[in-house]
Amino acid sequence: MGNTLGKNFKITSFGESHGKCVGIVIDGCPAGLPLTEKDIQADLDKRKPDREIASTKRAEEDKVDILSGTFHGQTTGAPLCMVVWNSNADSDVYEKTKDLLRPGHADFTAFIKYGGFNDYRGGGRFSGRITAGFVMAGAVARKLLNLTGMEILAYTVEIGGIKAEPVNLADIRRIDKNPVKCGDLKAAEKMLDAILQAKKEGDSLGGVIEAMVLNVPAGLGEPIFDTLEGDIAKALFAIPAVKGVEFGAGFVAAGLKGSQNNDRFVVKRDKISTETNNSGGILGGISDGMPIVVRAAVKPTPSISRKQNTVNISKMGNAELEIQGRHDVCVVPRAVPVVFAMMAVTIVDYALQSRLIPEVIK
Amino acid sequence: MGNTLGKNFKITSFGESHGKCVGIVIDGCPAGLPLTEKDIQADLDKRKPDREIASTKRAEEDKVDILSGTFHGQTTGAPLCMVVWNSNADSDVYEKTKDLLRPGHADFTAFIKYGGFNDYRGGGRFSGRITAGFVMAGAVARKLLNLTGMEILAYTVEIGGIKAEPVNLADIRRIDKNPVKCGDLKAAEKMLDAILQAKKEGDSLGGVIEAMVLNVPAGLGEPIFDTLEGDIAKALFAIPAVKGVEFGAGFVAAGLKGSQNNDRFVVKRDKISTETNNSGGILGGISDGMPIVVRAAVKPTPSISRKQNTVNISKMGNAELEIQGRHDVCVVPRAVPVVFAMMAVTIVDYALQSRLIPEVIK
Amino acid sequence: MGNTLGKNFKITSFGESHGKCVGIVIDGCPAGLPLTEKDIQADLDKRKPDREIASTKRAEEDKVDILSGTFHGQTTGAPLCMVVWNSNADSDVYEKTKDLLRPGHADFTAFIKYGGFNDYRGGGRFSGRITAGFVMAGAVARKLLNLTGMEILAYTVEIGGIKAEPVNLADIRRIDKNPVKCGDLKAAEKMLDAILQAKKEGDSLGGVIEAMVLNVPAGLGEPIFDTLEGDIAKALFAIPAVKGVEFGAGFVAAGLKGSQNNDRFVVKRDKISTETNNSGGILGGISDGMPIVVRAAVKPTPSISRKQNTVNISKMGNAELEIQGRHDVCVVPRAVPVVFAMMAVTIVDYALQSRLIPEVIK
Amino acid sequence: MGNTLGKNFKITSFGESHGKCVGIVIDGCPAGLPLTEKDIQADLDKRKPDREIASTKRAEEDKVDILSGTFHGQTTGAPLCMVVWNSNADSDVYEKTKDLLRPGHADFTAFIKYGGFNDYRGGGRFSGRITAGFVMAGAVARKLLNLTGMEILAYTVEIGGIKAEPVNLADIRRIDKNPVKCGDLKAAEKMLDAILQAKKEGDSLGGVIEAMVLNVPAGLGEPIFDTLEGDIAKALFAIPAVKGVEFGAGFVAAGLKGSQNNDRFVVKRDKISTETNNSGGILGGISDGMPIVVRAAVKPTPSISRKQNTVNISKMGNAELEIQGRHDVCVVPRAVPVVFAMMAVTIVDYALQSRLIPEVIK
Repeated sequence: MGNTLGKNFKITSFGESHGKCVGIVIDGCPAGLPLTEKDIQADLDKRKPDREIASTKRAEEDKVDILSGTFHGQTTGAPLCMVVWNSNADSDVYEKTKDLLRPGHADFTAFIKYGGFNDYRGGGRFSGRITAGFVMAGAVARKLLNLTGMEILAYTVEIGGIKAEPVNLADIRRIDKNPVKCGDLKAAEKMLDAILQAKKEGDSLGGVIEAMVLNVPAGLGEPIFDTLEGDIAKALFAIPAVKGVEFGAGFVAAGLKGSQNNDRFVVKRDKISTETNNSGGILGGISDGMPIVVRAAVKPTPSISRKQNTVNISKMGNAELEIQGRHDVCVVPRAVPVVFAMMAVTIVDYALQSRLIPEVIK
Repeated sequence: MGNTLGKNFKITSFGESHGKCVGIVIDGCPAGLPLTEKDIQADLDKRKPDREIASTKRAEEDKVDILSGTFHGQTTGAPLCMVVWNSNADSDVYEKTKDLLRPGHADFTAFIKYGGFNDYRGGGRFSGRITAGFVMAGAVARKLLNLTGMEILAYTVEIGGIKAEPVNLADIRRIDKNPVKCGDLKAAEKMLDAILQAKKEGDSLGGVIEAMVLNVPAGLGEPIFDTLEGDIAKALFAIPAVKGVEFGAGFVAAGLKGSQNNDRFVVKRDKISTETNNSGGILGGISDGMPIVVRAAVKPTPSISRKQNTVNISKMGNAELEIQGRHDVCVVPRAVPVVFAMMAVTIVDYALQSRLIPEVIK
Repeated sequence: MGNTLGKNFKITSFGESHGKCVGIVIDGCPAGLPLTEKDIQADLDKRKPDREIASTKRAEEDKVDILSGTFHGQTTGAPLCMVVWNSNADSDVYEKTKDLLRPGHADFTAFIKYGGFNDYRGGGRFSGRITAGFVMAGAVARKLLNLTGMEILAYTVEIGGIKAEPVNLADIRRIDKNPVKCGDLKAAEKMLDAILQAKKEGDSLGGVIEAMVLNVPAGLGEPIFDTLEGDIAKALFAIPAVKGVEFGAGFVAAGLKGSQNNDRFVVKRDKISTETNNSGGILGGISDGMPIVVRAAVKPTPSISRKQNTVNISKMGNAELEIQGRHDVCVVPRAVPVVFAMMAVTIVDYALQSRLIPEVIK
Repeated sequence: MGNTLGKNFKITSFGESHGKCVGIVIDGCPAGLPLTEKDIQADLDKRKPDREIASTKRAEEDKVDILSGTFHGQTTGAPLCMVVWNSNADSDVYEKTKDLLRPGHADFTAFIKYGGFNDYRGGGRFSGRITAGFVMAGAVARKLLNLTGMEILAYTVEIGGIKAEPVNLADIRRIDKNPVKCGDLKAAEKMLDAILQAKKEGDSLGGVIEAMVLNVPAGLGEPIFDTLEGDIAKALFAIPAVKGVEFGAGFVAAGLKGSQNNDRFVVKRDKISTETNNSGGILGGISDGMPIVVRAAVKPTPSISRKQNTVNISKMGNAELEIQGRHDVCVVPRAVPVVFAMMAVTIVDYALQSRLIPEVIK
């Protein structure tokens, strides 16, 4: 259970890391949206590993195949099913170590929950590869968002303890060009160095990804329980490795005084806005028209090449593990398009709820 | 919309701060649970304002009235409807300032979303008072949790920048006795001082609440989307003023290396556990048997008695606001039982999903 | 579980026949709808038993009390909670016969499902009295439907085997004035006679209720699974005693040939319609612009005053039962406003989905 | 929207008649169920058209391809995605007549709802071919049901007005061997004759399918709204051509007296059952332990080869239509395995809710 998300733009994930494919079904995409494999591929390509950062040179193709829901290059209103066919996967390596629980991974919890019947190859359902499905859904959501004037940006703000300075929107919009997806190019360089150093040490790094939604109309969100914060957080926690989510001033706000944290309302050009944005664009679970600002903490990749102590679950004894196979020293850059995707999927869900996107696109 | 939460233990919130009542309907509570108003009242009483911390002496009664779902002192399997009748509410004060948007509050977003038809008195649906309903649901969840051996603790770990040192479980279980609900008594004293100082200054403070779930069996959680982190976070963000949620090492994990952050598996007395708990008891969205540890950042109370600049929405012009009426200088202590409640409701939902609670209690 | 219905206009039922109250929470009613107790009361009054048909003279007041969701006589966008307080209920009679399973009632299934903890007084949750909540929700839905130009009619077409002839809309709109709620006045007279005869015999009668939705725009319904037929049927089967639901020609269509049953499309005044309406206004699960026509089969009231053989569940032995207390010889007339209500609630849900009702009513 | 059904055994349909494939995703199938393509294929083969009844000789292969959710021949607890790849489809024929609304089909309603962007080839999403996905889901449900001891039977009881006499279970279990899937072999012969006659006349026939669930434990169903009747009906109305659903005595019950229709409880061998089964095994929306009996009215196939009057939607004028391409003179026999599938899917959903199927199958 738990493989479907959303109310108006409903996505259902399926597939495994080393099975036939990874896929997604979208139910609720309005008819009439021009959509071809090219649109999806552009976003999928952003998820490709950077050669320097990844510890493997295996080329992943990850070509999208739209199985249903389009006709004559447009969506039909029927469910969109899209898959990326798996290939190149060397599963043998997993057979040897299948009883050794990889620390920080879901090997143990999946084993317990599914009674040992789970597909353990490459993490199976718990592989970061599943997020290819999220990105395909996000690519469709991106096209719908474009109709509303809203824009979502996601970008790295911290890796290995190195924090980026605030930069302007133009710099953020250029992040695709740098390997760590950070708008502060000086910090980006240091981040890359830190990653290469960790790679050398057989270790890994985590970081923080920020996302921003621009041109949000006030009024999105359905409190008391379906708050914008709650649903964005839920969507982001679906990304493997995310362990914290905060909005606006977030945990820093906890240490401020009300007089410091309150965003004062002002009228500018007949429009109400706030002077500061400590609330991250959300008040009472509803967007207030200021940019939505959210940060997700990404833990360091649990797969490290260093030898680790762990448990052999079939022998129920302590053991040592050396993880082989491909893995990323730092998943943060690759998680950036995934954060984008989960934000886009969530915002589109609310935009449909608030009727900002037509039922049929003409 | 958005007033129902949960799949197996479904709660529906209704009521307003200055309307007739605040209430909750629970659908999915198994039949046969002994339940009387006394059980609920004990939890409701924990939500009462501390006299020193609140800026008002108005006594709230908050007596629960169970309207349906019990018979002969036991639940029947039918929906439980519980209300707290409002009384004592002086609504006149809100008439005078109804057009002045209180900074940090949902006045503006509610006005926009509901076209000005929202009940603005005391924040209406967006009042902290709505959480009385959460607490009533949490009290029922507490009784169900007791059947499973699980225990949930919630307690203050930071107020006004003052951080508590880690303390033992015994200290945490005693927090009801101190006004800031913090297990570290030295820190608690400083927190109280800080609150009284802020009160004097007409200002307010925020803080951080931690919750822990003990004796959790491995296997709770329904990934990919219905992760334990995602659903806990969604439940906590329903609490007004929560702006961040993190699990285990959380945002700190983002700065660690994999070799530091990975929790090594070990076999102890034929049971698999981990040496550390940076993951906060959750791997791949599923509980791993270690305590679940989560922290929620609570922003400082937006209601401060200091004069603030804001906007008069009917005149669409800038204005000054002095907030009158009751409000808490720091809601953190009162939010502690609310965090407990939302944790309990969420864990019970998963416990029912995993069949840890019988369908009928005998 | 199972006490919430709908996606956009979500209703949650609570309360018991002999508990404190019967109630309903509506989530999703747009803000700005003028709504007072008077609006609801008008529909509730239609559910009152006719003196001749009922076997009791006990006066039920059934006065609605709106607990939340309105302010200054208008809806606020917050959940509407409405209750009818119970009174006059003589529960003692049920104590004596509580172990005797009433044939045709849910006494046995409720006992099994809820382990004997269910409130058995007057059928508890399974009493027809629960439909007072449906009617309150339907009254709100009626007001929303009025905004769309759609009109729903529900009326008796068969009682005790006596079938009404087709009549015109004007006659149907006058049914409130006759005790069996049938537009064909000749048939209505015979129906009433049959009811009085059954009453004399200590027996009961069933019948068929038809509902029609006029001025439906084409395009309502969300196939493949959320078909208009499927959701209307689900809503109608929530009414105790309904055992069959058919659309248009329904079971008769099963015996026709395609050339007879197909409704031919024609263009009239630049509008596409069909010459006949065997499909009952629904094709492929979606409304086609013709009137939606549905019929619900209502079984005879299981409560009869004649002596019946049954089982004593505590003694697990055969027994005889003579049912005391109030009950209707034929519930069909009282079920007419309930069918209206469930139709209205379902159509409004789809009308909101298709954006035929504004988010805020101005 | 509307392409997902179920709460515990959740199915999501995708695909089109003349697109790449027809598919289904199942979320909620317990891990550990032995499952291969062979299991699914056996049920899919039952859906194949009978050569005599179909008006086309085109061979459909309909080979299932399991894309995800199994590993080493067993389910993993992850979503099962299964498809049937389309082939042989001659879409050209649809281009010529695409503007001519086929009476009784969803051409018009789909056009309106999806703004003309719908895939019209072969009915697209509204083709009976979509039910191949239902049958694949039903095949998985069948295997889960086998674990519970429950058995579902579906069979023809009426075609073209010819009604079958009641037969014994052994005869019903043999229906796969006769072309009309009817247990009463005499009636079956007449039904086949009627079909061949209709074929000769370029016409089509409808009928009635009955389903029975044997060995049902008392207690399935989640009233008030999620009644067994309501959810079974909703599932059956998802089958194209179903226009009526009734339980037990159904519409006949409407004409009976209470003393005739009430099923008397009796104790037999320390078990409570009823002497008759007019309620169709369901009381108060909950199974009572007697066989569940339900009938679905299937309208005659709207595709007939006779010339029909209709509308050309692009010219908005009246027109004549002669339908070409494959179609069944009577879909009733092919709908029998589909009724089975929708029953199985629904009963499994409730069986999981009532914990009759383990979370992991060992």
